[in-house]
Formats: sequence, C-alpha cells, structure tokens
Amino acid sequence: MLSFASDYTRGAHPEILKRLSEINFEQNTGYGQDSYCKSAAEKIRQACGADDAQVFFLVGGTQTNQTIIDMLLKPYEGVIAASTGHVAAHEAGAIEHAGHKVLTIDNRGEEKDTDRYGDNIGKISADKLKSFIESFYADESCEHMVFPGAVYISHPTEYGTLYTKKELTAISEVCREFDIPLFLDGARLGYGLMSDRTDVTLKDIAKLVDVFYIGGTKVGALFGEAVVFTGKYAVKHPIPIIKQHGALLAKGWLLGLQFDTLFTDDLYFKISKNAIEMARILREGLEKKGYKLFLDSPTNQQFIVISNNKLKEISGKIGYSTWEKYDEENSVIRLATDWATSKDEIEKLLEYL
Amino acid sequence: MLSFASDYTRGAHPEILKRLSEINFEQNTGYGQDSYCKSAAEKIRQACGADDAQVFFLVGGTQTNQTIIDMLLKPYEGVIAASTGHVAAHEAGAIEHAGHKVLTIDNRGEEKDTDRYGDNIGKISADKLKSFIESFYADESCEHMVFPGAVYISHPTEYGTLYTKKELTAISEVCREFDIPLFLDGARLGYGLMSDRTDVTLKDIAKLVDVFYIGGTKVGALFGEAVVFTGKYAVKHPIPIIKQHGALLAKGWLLGLQFDTLFTDDLYFKISKNAIEMARILREGLEKKGYKLFLDSPTNQQFIVISNNKLKEISGKIGYSTWEKYDEENSVIRLATDWATSKDEIEKLLEYL
Amino acid sequence: MLSFASDYTRGAHPEILKRLSEINFEQNTGYGQDSYCKSAAEKIRQACGADDAQVFFLVGGTQTNQTIIDMLLKPYEGVIAASTGHVAAHEAGAIEHAGHKVLTIDNRGEEKDTDRYGDNIGKISADKLKSFIESFYADESCEHMVFPGAVYISHPTEYGTLYTKKELTAISEVCREFDIPLFLDGARLGYGLMSDRTDVTLKDIAKLVDVFYIGGTKVGALFGEAVVFTGKYAVKHPIPIIKQHGALLAKGWLLGLQFDTLFTDDLYFKISKNAIEMARILREGLEKKGYKLFLDSPTNQQFIVISNNKLKEISGKIGYSTWEKYDEENSVIRLATDWATSKDEIEKLLEYL
Amino acid sequence: MLSFASDYTRGAHPEILKRLSEINFEQNTGYGQDSYCKSAAEKIRQACGADDAQVFFLVGGTQTNQTIIDMLLKPYEGVIAASTGHVAAHEAGAIEHAGHKVLTIDNRGEEKDTDRYGDNIGKISADKLKSFIESFYADESCEHMVFPGAVYISHPTEYGTLYTKKELTAISEVCREFDIPLFLDGARLGYGLMSDRTDVTLKDIAKLVDVFYIGGTKVGALFGEAVVFTGKYAVKHPIPIIKQHGALLAKGWLLGLQFDTLFTDDLYFKISKNAIEMARILREGLEKKGYKLFLDSPTNQQFIVISNNKLKEISGKIGYSTWEKYDEENSVIRLATDWATSKDEIEKLLEYL
Repeated sequence: MLSFASDYTRGAHPEILKRLSEINFEQNTGYGQDSYCKSAAEKIRQACGADDAQVFFLVGGTQTNQTIIDMLLKPYEGVIAASTGHVAAHEAGAIEHAGHKVLTIDNRGEEKDTDRYGDNIGKISADKLKSFIESFYADESCEHMVFPGAVYISHPTEYGTLYTKKELTAISEVCREFDIPLFLDGARLGYGLMSDRTDVTLKDIAKLVDVFYIGGTKVGALFGEAVVFTGKYAVKHPIPIIKQHGALLAKGWLLGLQFDTLFTDDLYFKISKNAIEMARILREGLEKKGYKLFLDSPTNQQFIVISNNKLKEISGKIGYSTWEKYDEENSVIRLATDWATSKDEIEKLLEYL
Repeated sequence: MLSFASDYTRGAHPEILKRLSEINFEQNTGYGQDSYCKSAAEKIRQACGADDAQVFFLVGGTQTNQTIIDMLLKPYEGVIAASTGHVAAHEAGAIEHAGHKVLTIDNRGEEKDTDRYGDNIGKISADKLKSFIESFYADESCEHMVFPGAVYISHPTEYGTLYTKKELTAISEVCREFDIPLFLDGARLGYGLMSDRTDVTLKDIAKLVDVFYIGGTKVGALFGEAVVFTGKYAVKHPIPIIKQHGALLAKGWLLGLQFDTLFTDDLYFKISKNAIEMARILREGLEKKGYKLFLDSPTNQQFIVISNNKLKEISGKIGYSTWEKYDEENSVIRLATDWATSKDEIEKLLEYL
Repeated sequence: MLSFASDYTRGAHPEILKRLSEINFEQNTGYGQDSYCKSAAEKIRQACGADDAQVFFLVGGTQTNQTIIDMLLKPYEGVIAASTGHVAAHEAGAIEHAGHKVLTIDNRGEEKDTDRYGDNIGKISADKLKSFIESFYADESCEHMVFPGAVYISHPTEYGTLYTKKELTAISEVCREFDIPLFLDGARLGYGLMSDRTDVTLKDIAKLVDVFYIGGTKVGALFGEAVVFTGKYAVKHPIPIIKQHGALLAKGWLLGLQFDTLFTDDLYFKISKNAIEMARILREGLEKKGYKLFLDSPTNQQFIVISNNKLKEISGKIGYSTWEKYDEENSVIRLATDWATSKDEIEKLLEYL
Repeated sequence: MLSFASDYTRGAHPEILKRLSEINFEQNTGYGQDSYCKSAAEKIRQACGADDAQVFFLVGGTQTNQTIIDMLLKPYEGVIAASTGHVAAHEAGAIEHAGHKVLTIDNRGEEKDTDRYGDNIGKISADKLKSFIESFYADESCEHMVFPGAVYISHPTEYGTLYTKKELTAISEVCREFDIPLFLDGARLGYGLMSDRTDVTLKDIAKLVDVFYIGGTKVGALFGEAVVFTGKYAVKHPIPIIKQHGALLAKGWLLGLQFDTLFTDDLYFKISKNAIEMARILREGLEKKGYKLFLDSPTNQQFIVISNNKLKEISGKIGYSTWEKYDEENSVIRLATDWATSKDEIEKLLEYL
C-alpha cells in the first residue's frame, strides 16, 4: 500500500546502505569514539558555522528530547513548550519519567475562531514566552512552583509550520535575557531548511539556539539524530548521562557513518529538497481538486480536510495519518512526503483522492 | 588494527545487509507493528518452544536491562544481581536512574584465595540467592529496606561463564518459591547456547526463566535485542513503557528484519558456533604458548594473564580489553571472538602474542 | 499582625498540646506501629463507616499527594486533575519528580466571560472527565501518550468550592466504569464537611472515592494528614513506599495522638464548624461593606475583589493572600478563617477593610 | 515496658513543649520563613562558628539524607558510603528512588577475624576513600560507571562509633582534593559531640565538612533535623527542591522553635551529655555482670552479646533492638540511652539483665 502516513516509512538513502556494506567488516571502536563519528561531527560543525560546537549522536527523537532536556534542567526546573509540542503530548510521559514537568504555553485556543489554523499553529511566540517567565517570577509563591529551566521549540513544528528568522531571534533574545537555554527539536530539520518559504538557515539556528538536533530518522537515515550544543550549555560528561538513559549505541559508528554520508556533498539538503518539491506538487494538486487545506504548511507535512466517506473509500489503498475530527462529516488527515517520495507516487495519491 | 577488544567491533552478518537493501524502499508501519517484527517474533517463539511468549525488540543491552527491570519491579523493590553483573557495575547507574536499587550478592570474595577464578565467577548460586531472600524477610526491619523484586542473571556472564542446567533450575525454583521473576540477560546468548560445554538449551531457558533477551548486537546484528516474556509476567502495555524510556525505535522493522534473518535457517546458532570454535583454537594456542588463563571460560570471551611488557609490545597492533591488574608485573586482559572472527585472525593474534 | 493569609498560621487545638504533654515521657514504638495510631485509625474507620479501610498518617499535603499518587499509578500512567488543582500548579513538580505527568482538565476557560467565577471553579465535571478518558482511548496513537491512571479532586477545592453529592457520585461512576481510582485531597476536608451548603458527608466520601485524606495541618493539628484507602486499592506494603518518599515519621505516634484527639467527641467537626461560621460572618460583613465577592465560596476561604489602594492601606496590618490581578486597579485576595478564628478577629478585620 | 530499643521512643524536652504552648495562638508565616527559624538558624551558625552557613530545617533523617544527597549530586553521580551506612542499608531505597546509586565501601569484611569489631565499624577510612576514587578515574571505562559525586559519613555511625579529628580531617582532605562534597549525617550528632572519648567539636565539623545536619528527632526534639551547608555547596533554591521531595513543612516554625530552644543555653549539649553518662553507667554495669560488649561504642548506643535464653527471659519486660546473630546460642542486641534516660531506668535494666 502506498503510504503518506509519515516520513519514516522507508529505510535509508541508498548511499548510506552502500557505505554500511563497504565498512561492514571493518573493526571500529564502540560508543561513538570512532573515526566516522569524528568526521561527521566535524562536517556538521562546518555546516553550522560553529567550530566549537559539541556534537554527538543519538538514536531517535523521544530519546533525544528526553536526554537533552534532562541534561539542561536542574531537578526543580521544567521545560517550557507549546501545548502541541511533541514533548508535551506524544512521548508517553518521557520527560516526566525523567522527573521534569512540561510547562505548556497554549498556542491553539486563540486560533480556534479563525477559519483555519494560521501559520502559527505549533509555535510559541516570544511575547507569550516572556510573559510566561515574567509571570512566574512575579508570583510571590513561585518557589512552590516549577521553575522555567529551558525552552523547547520544534522547527518544523508538529504541524509543519516554521519560525521566521525574526521570530526565532526574538525567542532567542528572551531566553538569553533570562539565562534559560533554548532547545530546538529538529527531527524534521532538513524539511524546514529546504522549505521555499523560510529565511532561517542552519547557521542561523546554530547562532540563535543553545542546543538542537538534526533529524536523521525522518530525513534519509535508517535512524539517528545529530545533537549540536552550540555554546555554554555544552555537557561535561555526555557519555554517562546518555548511557544512563539507555541511549548509548554500542556500535556508535553506525550513527557517525550515516551522518557523515548525509553531510557529504550536501546530500542531507538535496534529499530534503525533494520532500518539499513533492509537497508543493501535492498541495497544488489538492487545491486544484478543491480540497481545503487545514493549515498552510510550508514543509513536507500537509494537512487537509476530507470527508469521512472519502476516507472510507481510500482506506486500504492510501496510508495517511488521522489528525483530528473536523466536524461531524469531515476529518483532518496528514499526508507526509519524504526524501524518497516520487512524482509518480504523488500522482497516484491525487488519483485516489 | 586487528581487534579482539570486544564482540561488537563489526557491522552485521551480510545476509542482514542484503535483506535491508532489498526492502529499503518498502513502506512499513512504525514502532514495531510491521510484518517483519511479527514474523521474527513467531520464529523466536518457535525456537523457544514457547507458543504464547510475548516477544518485542529493543536496541541495546543497557536499554533492555533498564526497561525490563523497570517493567518487573514495583517502586519499592530492587533487583538482585551478582556484584559483577552488568546492571550492578557497568551501566552508569541506569537502574538507579529508573528508581531501583541493585541488591548485590557478592560472588568474588570467596574465590580470591584459589589459584585462579573458578567457573563460577560472574554467577550467583541458588543457595546464596535463597539465603539472601530469607534473610531479608527474617529481618524485623525489612519494611525499611529494599524488597527483593526480581533476580538478574547473565548467561553467558560478564566473565564468559555459564550456568549448568542444574544450577539454572535451582535458581528458577528459588524464584518461583518466592514468586520473584527471574530475568536472564542474554546479550551474548548465542555464544552460551553454542558452547561445547553447556547442557542448557534455548528451550530450557524459556522454561526456567520469566523473561530473557536474545542478544543481537554482539551476535551478528547491527544492533538489537529480542525480549521474550515467557509467562505470567508478560506486560500489558509495553509500548508506552518502552517509549517512556526513549527506547521505541520509529523504524521498528529494522529490528524485526534482523531477527527474522537471524532466526531463519538457524543463522543465529551457526554464526554463534563460529565464535566458540575460534575461541577454542585461541585457547589452545594460548596454552601452547604458555599463557595462563585467568579463568576457564567456555564461551567467546577469553581472559589471560599477560606481562605488562608484552602488553606494551603489542599495543597498537592488537586490540584487547584491559580487565584488571593481576600483580605488579602482569595484567588480566580479555580477548573476544565473535560471529565473524576468522582462523587467519586468530593465527595473527597468536603470532603477536 | 492579625492574619487571614491562610488556615495554617497557628499551632494546634489546646487539647492536642495537653495530650502531647501527658504522654511526653511514655515510650512508644516508632513508625506508626503504636497504640495511638491504632486507636486513631479505628476511630476514623468508624467515622467513615468503613470497617475495612486502610488508614495511615503522613505529615503534610504535598507529601501526601505525591505518595498516594505514586502508590496508585503505574509508571506509564498520569493523574487527571483540574488545571487549578494543587498537584498541577503548586507542588514544585512533586508529582513529576516521582515520574508522573499531571493530565489537566481545563476548568477555567469557559467561565471567563461570566461576571464572576461560578461555584464550579476548581472542580472537574464528570462529563469532561468521561470525555477526556474516552478521547484518550479513541486516539489511535494513545499508546504513545500518558495513560489516565488516577483522578485527583480536592474537596474543598483550592478555591473553597465543593462538589455536590450528585456531582461526586457522577465522577465516581466514571472512575468505576473505567476502573480508574478516584483520589480526594481533603487537606481542608473538615471545612467542606461542616459547610452549611453541602450535602456530602464523610461516609459519602468513603463510599464514593477510593482513597482520600482528612487534613489535620489546616484543621486543628500541628501537622498531619490521615490517609484512608476505602477498598480495593489498599496498599500491600505502605511502609517502604512511604519511607522511600522520605515521609515516614520516626515518632509516628505524634500523628496518631493528634488524630485520636481530633476524632474523639467529634472535635474535628466542631472546630471545623467554627471556621465556617466565622467565614459566614465575614462574608456578610464584606457584602454589607459593598465588597464584591470574586466567587461564592461555601467554606472557610473567601475571595474578594479589592482596590490596590485599599491593599496598600491595610498592608502590614492585616495578613492576606494575593490571589490574582482583577483589573488595572483591583486585585483578588484570599481571606481564610480557621478552627481558631474568633469573632473579635473578624470584627477587627472588617474594621480595617 | 521500659525500652532501650532506640533513642526516639519519647516526645520532646519539656522546655520545647512549654514554648510550643506559649506560642500556640501566635500567627506565623509558613514554610520556614518565620522568626523562630531565623533565630534558630542564627544560633546554630554561632554554635558552628560559621557566620555564612546556610541553615534550614527538615523533618526526619531519611528525608534529610534523600533531599541533601539529591541537592549535591548531578544525575550521573552516586554517593559514596560505608556499606553499613544508613543510606546504603536502611532507607528503603530512598536514594535510588531519587535516581542515585549508593557506592559502598566495604567496612566490615576485614574486621571479621578480630575478636570483636573494632572502633572502626561503621566508618570509612580516608585511604579506602581515596583508593576508591582513584580506581574509578583510573578505569578506562569509567564513563560507563557511576561517578563518585559526594561522600556520606555518619557521626556517630550506625554502630555508635566516632571519627577522630585526625580521621575526619583526612577524609575532608581527600574530598577537597577531588572536589567532591562531604556530607555528615548527624542524626545523633549531640551524642557524638558529648562523648567523653572524642576530640571533634561542632566547629571542627563545620570546618571540615561541606554539609551536615544536627539531629533533633533523636536528641530532645519531637522531630526535626537542622541542615547546615557550610560553604560553596550552599543551595540557590532550597525551597522548590525541598517541596519537590514532599519535605516542606507548612508550619515550619515548629522546627525553628524546637531548634531555637535546643540551642538556647546549650540545652542540646546538656541533654546529649545525659545520654553519654547513662551509657557509661550502663556499660560499666554490663561489664561488671560479665556481658561481652560486641564493640566498644563511645556514644549512646551500646551493643552486647547476650544468650538467646536470656533474651526470652527479658522479652516483654525490656525493649531492645535485635542487631544480628552472634552464634547459634547468642545474639547481638542494641541498647540505646537518650536525652531523658534516668539512672533509675539503667538500674532496672541492669536488674533484668
């Protein structure tokens, strides 16, 4: 069945499999102390324009969010996130399991009366963030509450939306004013950077945020996320913390090799671009067919309103993600393109729809 | 550099890479809900003679130990382990990070006066286990102490030693008498099952223990451990618990496919046998050369006493693991064979030594 | 300075101090195994009409909430609470520190457009609760989210409001339908039971909820909360869990003696009644003086709207709790009466206001 | 029944009850922000000769150990303790519950062949401590193990033994060499300071350790432990951390008042002295009667070897703590004197024995 249910339905870019085969019988040092991890880290530092960044590799998204947030927070601190943020809603309580509260800023309520969710769904604003932090410190009983200890944003967000450079700069300034680290979840970072409607570059991110990760699982790798600490929040002993979270891969070079491949000859960016182009074709096709876009996503995830009858019709033929109920007769579904989606597949999808 | 430092220095059995390539562009459901995981689980159930076993797949050893132990224990319970057990000594406190104490049974002290450690190093005995549990309940202040809530053993142990069927049965009986689940860490299970000095089969294990895992990382897979709950301790909702530990792989079929391959045509057992044969040749070669074995390991890890001078000589030529100081002039090192070790490599190693 | 800032500004009912003095040199068994704890538990069981209830004593409110919720939940479960619930907002993340998410039901948003908060502020409704649980199980990705594992309500709430018997019954029915334990925080239970506008008795609570506590700290004791498990969620080994939370008082009889005193000759109820009567006089006085009540609280906490100028005037003369900003020129403050508040004090307060 | 089972069998020094009665109807600020806590803290700073020390109050011993150790450690660090240390053995896993491993130094094994345990039972030595830390850092896989992040000692120890000033200085030097905080559990500190066989003063402790607590529960208070951070490890935000552990007493002045009383006119030291004198009389009486002391304790806990027959005889007449089996016919029991023990009671005890 042709599926647009997510961007992690396939294996890896063939170049990755090729290199895995080539080095299969090489003997490597374990736990990320190998030459591929070193090389990949160096290439990532260059791509980020961040010579002194601390770079290491983890396996998946929830694991990375949990481990980094635990690295950033003191025990009595929580992480601020949008109420729609992955860490707030879809990680089975991984953040709380590590002892920390997710302090949510509601980013949906105010949009509900507009015709469709705007470009801001999924995001937090610098203003609301500042007001949240100031309210906390203004409360005379703040010592009885959870301190804001880090800020989590995703880019693209869980709704495919993007921060502008201006918005990201404003958030960064709030964080620096209050000396709170800013963490950017880049599980789909490639699709954000290659959007045709963004002015945010990888180097901007490396300048504006304190730690972020470059998603591999959803962007051409079998698995893997490259964590980048850009400055003063670099971790003194990452290995025991990673290991304590069960997140230290024995054959760490599998991660290094994949990111080394992705960051050779701009492969990561080229394949990300494909998803964006396919999403554009899909969006145009959907609009031509009269589908209502639930929101105007500039990245690889497209959200449409579709009748429940139509959904029954395509069931078993097209894979999609059910997002939410729209009204009694319609639903919102997500269709995701990825690094490997072909024009043929988009055409087939449009036929079914 | 030729390395015997560990059994996780290489990639995967070529058949695994071949199948990964074959299905690379197939679209699969995420999080272990795919057909490869189902097929692998079924093959494992058959190999275990355990039709109703609950089988799922995790990425690495520490992660698996942490997740399973957390599944087994109530908050006020700890896990009993040998003081040399991996969970007690080499997991950066992963068990404690999840809130549980490791209750250790000392298994070294009594052996120190013998000429070399015996076959029991790394193991716990049913007698000591029973006495530990009985002492706990006999203590009038036991409610102020950590309850014994599970028993952890490794087979092979961290020293390459093995339980006999009689020993394993006795431990199992103690656990069942006290209604405490028995968990067997099989990170190197293949090398234990294929030893030429064991009477313990996979089916025996499935009968005698409540949960165990079949190690892939060290036995032919890129990564992965197959968890088998054999009976009443099966977990009602494994997914949220796994996810909460950051241990739920998005592309779960990567695990399923690897174990499906390993459990097709007995591949897992055949490649395990290779490590045992190479270890036997190595041991014979070492003894011929007059090396003193630190202990008599029946599996793929061999521990030898070697002079510090000799170590300097081979440094940079042969990879090995430093284990411990033997005396002022000698050290104990570990040499590990694996599923891919060749006779040529053993000969080269013996030449250097 | 005369203070109405809270209901825990004074020591204990004199009868408690008297008995503490009387038994001061008696030697008692520690950790709650003494005769006073036994006697108090028995008296509480009788007052609750719950012969088989499990009763034990803890020191304070946050400690009790944390310990009980940890007793009720499996690791992958969270506790449902009103967004204004004490566990959600004012416990410094104690619930998350123990690894659990607080799943909040918003109970404020919908009331914002009414002139003043209604009687429902602070409460959750059975309907919203049912819909929350049903939505969770209807979500196809619910295994990636935090399971609803317990329901937390407070009675009186943090806003002094009360559930009716009908409302409490409806919530109880939802909980039983989904087999989720219902936990009632009774830090101010006496003031709820003695309200002149309640139809809920202690026996009703013992029938309708699975675990609750009878607050002592705010109702006549130096400190202490009596925990009552009414049925099937009774805890097999409370002591190690309590101790693990640092909550096991060595001289447990101090708790037993206080509750034994409070539950002799209905002392707990009589002194609770005083706070209700004083609150009524206060409310009438305030209304006579033209103060706007922020909400219509039937218990000992009264919330009024007061001008910031007036607040400056009384500052240093009357203690109160700042609650929230009402508008640019006015604030909401809380005035609490307690078991020891006298008519004289109310009159002085009204004079100042 | 006359009991020597422990030193927390009675209430509080009468002066404390008197003052509690006197201020019972005073209204105080909660959570330790009252004048009694301030006054007590100041008196303790003076007694310690530590003008800048951070002083706050907690309720009980396990709670204090858990909270302080959690304040000191980073998540990947553990606390070093004697294997007989309270945190290692008798706190129901409270340290692990907060995520940290207790790294034990065995302090019993080597003494087993002597006729009776020496004065060192319960203690750790600077040499062993240094060797433990050096071995950790010398291990090439130390990043996979739990980092030593704090050192826990008790004084008096769980066996009533005491460090000499020389020993304590040596331990302090090791800790400072490795920049690891030293934490002294003073649950029975008074009995240590007032021993007739110690050269360690309160001021010495304040100079040599980084944090310690002055036990109240076992030394004249109803409950309470005064925590003293002497220098650079002072905690920036103690309140949210304390609250998060469920350890923040609402009526904090109850703690302040008790310690203010104990540190007025040297009351703490005077009543501690009583326990030491009674213990001396007891010890002399026991030796006269031919009892074998299990160890030579210089404080209020005395350990004797007694026949199981004799134990049956006194059962129900004298309270004692069973410590351990001595041989088939004899047991070791603990007899504890306290601040309130009278000469009459000792004489009765000796009669029974």
